[in-house]
Amino acid sequence: MVGPDNVISVEDIEAAADRIAGHVRVTPVLRPGPGSFGLDLDLVLKLELLQHTGSFKPRGAFNRILSNPVPAAGVIAASGGNHAAAVAHAATELGIPAEIHVPEAAPAIKLERLARYPVDVRRTGALYDDAQAACDLRAAETGALVCHPYDLPEVLAGQGTVGRELEAQAPDVDTVLVAVGGGGLIGGVASWYRGRTKVVAVEPESSRCLGAALEAGEPVDVPVSGLASDALGAKRVGSWPFAAAHAWVGEAVTVPDAAIADAQHRLWQELRLVVEPGGAAALAALACGTYAPAPGERVAVLVCGANTDPTGVT
Amino acid sequence: MVGPDNVISVEDIEAAADRIAGHVRVTPVLRPGPGSFGLDLDLVLKLELLQHTGSFKPRGAFNRILSNPVPAAGVIAASGGNHAAAVAHAATELGIPAEIHVPEAAPAIKLERLARYPVDVRRTGALYDDAQAACDLRAAETGALVCHPYDLPEVLAGQGTVGRELEAQAPDVDTVLVAVGGGGLIGGVASWYRGRTKVVAVEPESSRCLGAALEAGEPVDVPVSGLASDALGAKRVGSWPFAAAHAWVGEAVTVPDAAIADAQHRLWQELRLVVEPGGAAALAALACGTYAPAPGERVAVLVCGANTDPTGVT
Repeated sequence: MVGPDNVISVEDIEAAADRIAGHVRVTPVLRPGPGSFGLDLDLVLKLELLQHTGSFKPRGAFNRILSNPVPAAGVIAASGGNHAAAVAHAATELGIPAEIHVPEAAPAIKLERLARYPVDVRRTGALYDDAQAACDLRAAETGALVCHPYDLPEVLAGQGTVGRELEAQAPDVDTVLVAVGGGGLIGGVASWYRGRTKVVAVEPESSRCLGAALEAGEPVDVPVSGLASDALGAKRVGSWPFAAAHAWVGEAVTVPDAAIADAQHRLWQELRLVVEPGGAAALAALACGTYAPAPGERVAVLVCGANTDPTGVT
Repeated sequence: MVGPDNVISVEDIEAAADRIAGHVRVTPVLRPGPGSFGLDLDLVLKLELLQHTGSFKPRGAFNRILSNPVPAAGVIAASGGNHAAAVAHAATELGIPAEIHVPEAAPAIKLERLARYPVDVRRTGALYDDAQAACDLRAAETGALVCHPYDLPEVLAGQGTVGRELEAQAPDVDTVLVAVGGGGLIGGVASWYRGRTKVVAVEPESSRCLGAALEAGEPVDVPVSGLASDALGAKRVGSWPFAAAHAWVGEAVTVPDAAIADAQHRLWQELRLVVEPGGAAALAALACGTYAPAPGERVAVLVCGANTDPTGVT
């Protein structure tokens, strides 16, 4: 069960930052200026989509692998695509074997990225949770180190380095908006800020496992579908992420698919950035108004994934 | 004639930075890490493509306009596309009328961006120099303030703020690679560094007005063609840029179109950035080896334009 001890510490995140330094990029922040995106707002964008492999996922992947002895069977993971590429990248950099399970639903561009690494890729099941089940069975057979995409303390601590970096780059923000799939990123970021700065969860209307869990008081299964489901479509929030969110996430809002697509288009028009649906969801909450900042509130948005066909965003 | 006095000062650039602050974005730098782009190099990318309108051009445009009284006729400019959008953006922000001349060669995506501003757009001539000639005739008629894209001290000083910003963000670089069209950006950046840091010019093989001028000892006409000609295709370097380059540009190299296209593709694969040919030319010099850094040399590259159809870069 989720209890008060099921959380990572600031020291865990500091240690992760030391451990992964040199393996991950310090991603820049941009203050686009008032009026950008049609928003009258003092906005900070954390451009985590410039991370290796086009998403924040290498932070958690490297921290998980570097924190543990790696057996001869190497590492194993399941993912809708971004965590898959991150584990493949980390394993390749570190010279260890990897077996990666991806669902049929993974987009072509994520599969193409994955195919560039010398790892064992297996298509298992329709959606992420199916691939995770296949991965867990295989892990029991092979003894490989499991790199779960979000429900491990080392993964949360790795993703928490996004919060640590953002606070150093933009100490003046009042609120950080974070898109939520299984909760690894928001769990890590909330564990960094620990209520000092408001952390807001943004989920698609059609896959809101964290919002449902916060309402129920514990992780519960939700249906999963929609534009961002390859990245945000986890049917149940992780227990580690839930504990952090339960303690420190001030608010959970949802966005319809149309708002996500609109945010992708705005990011292209305003910054010429190609951002995948999951990466644009947090900005969507501002643009469609499901998160409405108070006057003068300084808001940071994590732009956290770029792996999408650019023809879909222009 | 170009003489030793035909250069801007560091104070001009400092004044420009004060003048345009709040109108332009501080664009971030990224250290992509060793091995990125297949280069074994300590690289810094200045992501000036995240500037308003998708190129560095608003810096010079705002500084030109804000440095001068604007007549009732407003401002007038000619451009292959990026300077056009920048002048349109600046004029719109400042609430003054603008007449913009663009050649037939301007790409559709640049015309679409321009069309979003309430300015008077005129298609005049085949290439940039034709549009500039039409613009000059009209300016004599209307009395509008001419915003030349590169051959004005205020424009050089505005573009020079890229160098000022880069040095503050990355004081440790030994060398800065800059793509050259008419020379506004490199003239400004070289006028900032003044030889303290090596500034290298990168031109397409098929439009190398600065290289030819440095060989001749004065600006000369060159033929203009190729992949990047909408942004870099000036047939003669400006007299202000030439003076700065003559004084402080350490080296001028060229890149073939194939290397530019390859650099665009590498930027997409490595960072998911959509970069126009002119914006990718400086990186191309490293990737194709026409600029070969010494061991340990720390190189910054200005990635300075994003206005291109993304289907061309993937």
